[in-house]
Amino acid sequence: MIRKNYEYLGSVRSAIRELFEYGLRRKAEIGQGKVFDFSLGNPSVEPPASVNEELARLIKDTEATALHGYTSAQGDKITREAVAKYITETQGFAVSAEDLYMTVGAAAALSCALSALSGPGEEVIVLAPYFPEYKVFINQAGAETREVLCDPVSFQPDLEAIKAAINERTAAIIVNSPCNPTGAVYTRDNLVALADILRNAEAEYGHPIYLIADEPYRELVYGGAVVEYLPKLYDNCIVCYSFSKSLSIPGERIGYLLVSPKVEDRGRVYAAVCGAGRSLGYVCAPSMLQKLVPACLGQCADIEIYDRNRILLLEKLTEYGFEAVKPEGAFYLFLKAPDGDAEAFSEAAKRHELLLVPSTSFGCGGYVRISYCVSTEQIKNALPAFRALAEEYFGDKK
Amino acid sequence: MIRKNYEYLGSVRSAIRELFEYGLRRKAEIGQGKVFDFSLGNPSVEPPASVNEELARLIKDTEATALHGYTSAQGDKITREAVAKYITETQGFAVSAEDLYMTVGAAAALSCALSALSGPGEEVIVLAPYFPEYKVFINQAGAETREVLCDPVSFQPDLEAIKAAINERTAAIIVNSPCNPTGAVYTRDNLVALADILRNAEAEYGHPIYLIADEPYRELVYGGAVVEYLPKLYDNCIVCYSFSKSLSIPGERIGYLLVSPKVEDRGRVYAAVCGAGRSLGYVCAPSMLQKLVPACLGQCADIEIYDRNRILLLEKLTEYGFEAVKPEGAFYLFLKAPDGDAEAFSEAAKRHELLLVPSTSFGCGGYVRISYCVSTEQIKNALPAFRALAEEYFGDKK
Repeated sequence: MIRKNYEYLGSVRSAIRELFEYGLRRKAEIGQGKVFDFSLGNPSVEPPASVNEELARLIKDTEATALHGYTSAQGDKITREAVAKYITETQGFAVSAEDLYMTVGAAAALSCALSALSGPGEEVIVLAPYFPEYKVFINQAGAETREVLCDPVSFQPDLEAIKAAINERTAAIIVNSPCNPTGAVYTRDNLVALADILRNAEAEYGHPIYLIADEPYRELVYGGAVVEYLPKLYDNCIVCYSFSKSLSIPGERIGYLLVSPKVEDRGRVYAAVCGAGRSLGYVCAPSMLQKLVPACLGQCADIEIYDRNRILLLEKLTEYGFEAVKPEGAFYLFLKAPDGDAEAFSEAAKRHELLLVPSTSFGCGGYVRISYCVSTEQIKNALPAFRALAEEYFGDKK
Repeated sequence: MIRKNYEYLGSVRSAIRELFEYGLRRKAEIGQGKVFDFSLGNPSVEPPASVNEELARLIKDTEATALHGYTSAQGDKITREAVAKYITETQGFAVSAEDLYMTVGAAAALSCALSALSGPGEEVIVLAPYFPEYKVFINQAGAETREVLCDPVSFQPDLEAIKAAINERTAAIIVNSPCNPTGAVYTRDNLVALADILRNAEAEYGHPIYLIADEPYRELVYGGAVVEYLPKLYDNCIVCYSFSKSLSIPGERIGYLLVSPKVEDRGRVYAAVCGAGRSLGYVCAPSMLQKLVPACLGQCADIEIYDRNRILLLEKLTEYGFEAVKPEGAFYLFLKAPDGDAEAFSEAAKRHELLLVPSTSFGCGGYVRISYCVSTEQIKNALPAFRALAEEYFGDKK
């Protein structure tokens, strides 16, 4: 019979999607340029030229049955070797092709990792505010989501709160730095301390607690922020990576999952990931996209555009009287709702044709998320609307 | 903790994969041309020229952020409209874009359909011999697999046995015609009768029984065989389609799921499919591959090569004394084990460097599956080995 949980998931769009679809309708009503859509994390910056160049080359030079044929379920060997070499060289942390499993994007990697490593009677810790699909994948695995709020000023992990949340049922914790939706990049000190807490808890409860690093924004950092490589800090670490944001190819669904070679029972964990992938219906990651990867490792879309957007938005919104933590990574600005009511603030913004996602979608109140992976022009054009929104909230105080 | 069911699925390769991997090792030992691998259904025939031409055109002419960006979860609207138009015109059965959900291949479509429409306490009927991953996806949904043997002479569905197997717990039946592994194409008479049985059972038990049509081999038929369009015969029908075999692009993972517009509670079923896809981690089907589809509808790899292989194999193997049902579709020949022992026959074949998959992998004994989606040259070169195998079994009787 029709599964009600899936029917619900398929009927109720995420608040992000809902706002985006509203934007499409509204644009049709009043005109494309009059609605300022900051809802989706859909990069507007071109992929690096190497993406299309290499795709064209592959199509021209590769035997078609090889280019478009099945790869092994783990992924093309040459691709996995290239990724392993790249990680080893850039992170100074030795991994091999056998530690990697190519995935249909980071969502598939997360889904496989969570299904492989958590289940009924267990909890997975997420640091709120967080990407809402985490909860969907944790539910799919049959486990429960345990939300732990980040520090409300810095949006760094609240170490004491994490320590208090861990118990004998804790199977894993998801760490997403740079963070969607706050743009926070977790500091080395905090991550070292987090690793200590997890190790102590593992010793106390006598079982592994997996740290699942969700890293689609790894390369998108500004002002010299450094993204730590978590497998260097903690052994039972799984990395979920996507080329969606770094290469601006989010629709192509190509990423990978790394089972750190230091994971306890590494072979069993890797087998469980492959088995979960097989069971969920993933035969292999798209073959041509896999074969694209070696030529594009270390390449990145032009993130100076995002950086410019970030600075412009932050400067102007602060000038208008709003408050936000300066984002150091990803392409999101987490703006405080002046009166603390995220939903009302998002609605008020909508009346000024500004589409900002209320933070309640991300498991915390009091903010809206502004996706600034848009054209700088869109931001400039939206500034009068932001100013009018400020005036509505702050009146003549400014 | 590590899920043992997934660890098992990820550690134990399917018998098909196992044989294929053995073949790779054996080829390294004794030479590429000396091992005759008939294990995998990995097409050796080139994709139609339009595939690479259209991909090259898309790369050249489409704005990169649009080409590689997210599509909606259901799939690109233009693609779904083109597929809907194609089905409507070629099948004389009206469907619309809203009935279609683009998937990461047929495996993802099956996985989504089974998770959406079956679950704990329910049964899904499969017609043995059958593609072994059906059981994996049914398990993933939490339901039970109910195997019903096909007629052992024709490999057509055994209608009486199906009728006897249906009960109040039956949620769905998977129909795969042309069939992997037998090559049987189910007759119109049998499918009409099957539809009657299902409708009667629906009336008796008071709930829908979904017919899930797994159709990756739809276009691969020979000698004028006709593949019925199941939504025309039965209302509660879900079609899982893949472009893997028709376009020879199995690694690219592009297909679709059709919720027939005649399905009871169509909107709820469609929502459940979308929700299952979301929950399993499918964000959208690979965008560039989705955009390839409209230009390639109705195109097909050159199946005359498969037809030639089919005729050559059948003629020679019969001449040597073996027995097989003449396959009318797909690219598999289901050969009888002379003494009824599939495993022993596969092992004996292996000693002649012939890699044939024992039918026990497909839920029935007594046969081996020969994938003839290989070069005709490989078949010609393998004939002396088949003859020697025959002599081993039949001695001087021939």
